[in-house]
Amino acid sequence: MKMINKINKPNNIKNLSEDEIKELIKELREVIIKTTSINGGHLASSLGTIELTIGILLSLDLEKDDKIIWDVGHQAYAYKILTGRSDDFSTLRQFRGISGFPRRSESQYDYFGAGHSSTSISAGLGFCVARELNKKKSTIVSVIGDGSLTGGEAFEALNNASKLISNFIIVLNDNDMSIAKNEGGLHMALEGVRTSYNYIKLKEKVKDFLEKIPYVGDVLINFIILIKNILKQIHSPRGMIFENMNIAYIGPIDGHNVEKVKKAIDRAKEIKKAVVVHIKTKKGNGYEYAETDPIKFHGIAPFEIETGEIINKKKLPTYTNIFAKKIVELAKQNDKIVAMTAAMPDGTGLNLFKKEFPNRYFDTGIAEQHTITFASSLAIEGFIPFVCIYSTFLQRAYDQILEDVCLQKLHVIFCIDRAGLVGQDGETHQGIFDISFLSHIPNMTIMAPKGQKELEQMMDFATKMNSPVAIRYPRGIAFNELDDLDEEIKYGKAEIIYEGNNIALLALGRAMSTALHVYEKLKLKNINASLINARFASPIDTEMINKLCQTHNTIVTLEENVKRGGFGEAIAEYIMEKGYEIRLINESLPNEFVPHGSVDVLRENLKVDSDSILKDILE
Amino acid sequence: MKMINKINKPNNIKNLSEDEIKELIKELREVIIKTTSINGGHLASSLGTIELTIGILLSLDLEKDDKIIWDVGHQAYAYKILTGRSDDFSTLRQFRGISGFPRRSESQYDYFGAGHSSTSISAGLGFCVARELNKKKSTIVSVIGDGSLTGGEAFEALNNASKLISNFIIVLNDNDMSIAKNEGGLHMALEGVRTSYNYIKLKEKVKDFLEKIPYVGDVLINFIILIKNILKQIHSPRGMIFENMNIAYIGPIDGHNVEKVKKAIDRAKEIKKAVVVHIKTKKGNGYEYAETDPIKFHGIAPFEIETGEIINKKKLPTYTNIFAKKIVELAKQNDKIVAMTAAMPDGTGLNLFKKEFPNRYFDTGIAEQHTITFASSLAIEGFIPFVCIYSTFLQRAYDQILEDVCLQKLHVIFCIDRAGLVGQDGETHQGIFDISFLSHIPNMTIMAPKGQKELEQMMDFATKMNSPVAIRYPRGIAFNELDDLDEEIKYGKAEIIYEGNNIALLALGRAMSTALHVYEKLKLKNINASLINARFASPIDTEMINKLCQTHNTIVTLEENVKRGGFGEAIAEYIMEKGYEIRLINESLPNEFVPHGSVDVLRENLKVDSDSILKDILE
Repeated sequence: MKMINKINKPNNIKNLSEDEIKELIKELREVIIKTTSINGGHLASSLGTIELTIGILLSLDLEKDDKIIWDVGHQAYAYKILTGRSDDFSTLRQFRGISGFPRRSESQYDYFGAGHSSTSISAGLGFCVARELNKKKSTIVSVIGDGSLTGGEAFEALNNASKLISNFIIVLNDNDMSIAKNEGGLHMALEGVRTSYNYIKLKEKVKDFLEKIPYVGDVLINFIILIKNILKQIHSPRGMIFENMNIAYIGPIDGHNVEKVKKAIDRAKEIKKAVVVHIKTKKGNGYEYAETDPIKFHGIAPFEIETGEIINKKKLPTYTNIFAKKIVELAKQNDKIVAMTAAMPDGTGLNLFKKEFPNRYFDTGIAEQHTITFASSLAIEGFIPFVCIYSTFLQRAYDQILEDVCLQKLHVIFCIDRAGLVGQDGETHQGIFDISFLSHIPNMTIMAPKGQKELEQMMDFATKMNSPVAIRYPRGIAFNELDDLDEEIKYGKAEIIYEGNNIALLALGRAMSTALHVYEKLKLKNINASLINARFASPIDTEMINKLCQTHNTIVTLEENVKRGGFGEAIAEYIMEKGYEIRLINESLPNEFVPHGSVDVLRENLKVDSDSILKDILE
Repeated sequence: MKMINKINKPNNIKNLSEDEIKELIKELREVIIKTTSINGGHLASSLGTIELTIGILLSLDLEKDDKIIWDVGHQAYAYKILTGRSDDFSTLRQFRGISGFPRRSESQYDYFGAGHSSTSISAGLGFCVARELNKKKSTIVSVIGDGSLTGGEAFEALNNASKLISNFIIVLNDNDMSIAKNEGGLHMALEGVRTSYNYIKLKEKVKDFLEKIPYVGDVLINFIILIKNILKQIHSPRGMIFENMNIAYIGPIDGHNVEKVKKAIDRAKEIKKAVVVHIKTKKGNGYEYAETDPIKFHGIAPFEIETGEIINKKKLPTYTNIFAKKIVELAKQNDKIVAMTAAMPDGTGLNLFKKEFPNRYFDTGIAEQHTITFASSLAIEGFIPFVCIYSTFLQRAYDQILEDVCLQKLHVIFCIDRAGLVGQDGETHQGIFDISFLSHIPNMTIMAPKGQKELEQMMDFATKMNSPVAIRYPRGIAFNELDDLDEEIKYGKAEIIYEGNNIALLALGRAMSTALHVYEKLKLKNINASLINARFASPIDTEMINKLCQTHNTIVTLEENVKRGGFGEAIAEYIMEKGYEIRLINESLPNEFVPHGSVDVLRENLKVDSDSILKDILE
């Protein structure tokens, strides 16, 4: 029996010898590598935090009231294994298996669900305040990465945490990169880089002085040493950014030394206010390929352990690939095009653009809100910003999209990747709300391509517009079966794929591939339906609806978004408003959060696969 | 002719003598006080920035390419007057008059529209980057208050601004309060308060040493002075929080001294990176009543200049008043109730709660995102958080509502004041999107009271629930005409007010008062409609809809929210799904931004007043 299988509770590790801890670390590393090599997952960050996790667990007592809150949570694989989930860990990210993120429903030790960045300090502070109100004692530890710290909410939380007069430990897991390479002033503050003109001048002045000073014995020598120490602090003010805000600071600590981590947490516990424990870790630690290329191994598909190569690497282009090439092509023709990502140059495909146009490329860190406002003023100045943020993360900037972009009617192009079901990352990451949170915003246009070629056409079209526009497209291989149907895009107009009668299938974006299957299955039953590509989720093509209502007896809307606020609902409202008598079948996702699992399994489960839809129609 | 009427362009003030500037300041103060005393408005903050505005304008050349970006923008009245809007200023906040906030459509000198907090640094940075890409020269100044700086987006922007290698001036207008009194670590950092244990210890050690040191002539004396200066800097590190992030710092500057402000900006212009100019101002400066009570005079209704008293002070209770009393009553009965506001204790009415339960009250600063996550973990710990944020500002926390509260199905109660049209604050402040951005979020319940009594009932009901719930209620006097109809609230169930036939008026929340008028007007035409109080915007009462569809020929839904994603649309979708044949009239707001003006004027203009609705029904 392996060590990890003996650890059923977080305190089990407390009786282990030093050698046993070493063995445990080895086993954890192996099982995490093995599981992600089969299931895919967030390998690099979880390898980076194995010793950090053990160090914290050695200091805390989770079996009493202590708590750990993980930011984002993709670094918590070791934690999951050590808190009673080792037997189930092989089901990681699989349907009904262990989630890739902390989930309260999964374990009593997952104190706060996560998935999106920069929430752990706020959540931890809530637990601290609850503890104070309950007049209880416990240690609350929020673990946040340096990347997550660039998100504004983390700062809002720090600003509030500074008021605490009881202990609150914020472990800053500093691997010097968020998902991609970390940039910006916060990074410099953490590194202790002091570039301030005044300080540099002062330092030179003092050095000068120290050299000129006469020798007056030991007292002065000691004094000089002291002064040098002061200067050192002035010049290397690591953590000062926290101390300035009345938050204590301990660090930096070697995050791959269990004992040092434990001791730092022990020390931090004594402080009667919020304290940052700055722990340096290495992403991918202990697995050569992940250490060398932590970006590739951030969120990775199944791979071969021996070579680090991805198994069954997709040869067919994904939507992301298509987007990546097309934006470079557009930018070559139009030097007003700029592009921004919130810490996702690889995921969004913008790395290609970055290479070609470094000056027109902006990685803003995990800072979706800032990104949108920043894009707005560039648009005012005549640039054409392509804002590349996943559907789920764009949720963070809803207010800025509404107030800054749409209210000012600015030509900002949102390229929304991972729209629709995303699969294994699960409920925090499904891109199933964007139509609902965008389509009610005045002045916003929303498109969704039926496939590969149309994504390119829509990017062309969006570039020529002069108002806010979003293009939503899904994760994965780009559909291309209908690519030769490439009628020119006209604003707000749908495209007829096949003209039939009685039943009209009106599909938006990715749902076109499902709709095509439904169409073909209907055909086998001698039903000649119409197949229509909606193209625009907003505005809807009312002319087309008018026509369909006059010529068909059933309209089936298909989309990969929740029903409430979705595309089908807008169609329903319009039909009611006009008083048309027609049967409408709204094939959207139920108004529920969708758990993790492969996209195909999820679609079947949610009854939005072609067979389920066929059944609905034939009923 | 007054001085201000001679200033038609921003550069006009450059030729004024010192005395003329003094006279100009006096006139500006008078006209701002006079106009807000008649129209209402943001008096205290605009009085605080008169000299600051002039100082900046003296240093810049807006008639070339220089730009000022105002955060929130309610402090920009003097700026509006000095940039060619003095003749129109008397129309401030009136329908089709001058907006209370910067609007690009209003003036070429309003470079970036505002209304919500913490966006000016992001916008300014966009302008700086555009300038770099265009290889042009100009000075970009973003003016941000210390309160706005607590919003996470401002920090995201600072983190990005630190990468700049060209000039960008961030004027920190520090009046030591946001809307209410400012709190938190950032405030301490700005004040230069250093409480860090290490630093205090170090200071004592050095002092000790200095006293023991032998006399060795001038060199050492100078040295000691130098060291003392270093210590002073260590002990009073105002602005160090910025310098730590590689952002230069100048200040603090007396913000009521035009010449000093101008000189500080001149100096800041020379710095080839982002620079914070820290300017201290006094809210309400120059008007005694506003200086004494800047919170009252933040956003004020028409008042008498001589006494500072509000004219026609409403004697009837507002929804805010009702809420404020009720939450105190509930909290007396249930010690698990806690309440939080994002810098709006007065606006939300929570000041009463604060007084009674200071330990259970949390003012988080302008930090909506943090507030929601913070409330989430308190809910996990069994507390019942009442999150009190205006409809429009809640937009800022959409992602946290979805991911932290609703995904985890936590019992957080959102009390959404200012839902619906708010009037004079205009398009950035209308609360007309909350049903659309909340009702598609799984697990969320949304209620809206028909009036005063029902708000109390809903607060009772929400307290007893065990999942996320929002209560939306409007600005202004609480409707009470139907208060004796107070049937017990049942989850998801509407309330029948009057049972009639043919036409069913189904009204949500504030729209009930309009619906009642429509009902009465129909009665005069011998039409006996049904009048139904929806109570729940989500879930909709499908049982009631089924019944209405079987017994009436027309349903009229009434709500104060945009149509897309609204309550009426959900009803339409349901009716289509069921295939009922009934006429549906959706009386919601058009999918447009709604400008400033009195609520009554706006309603008429948007055709959602009772006469317009009556017309729709009778057509």
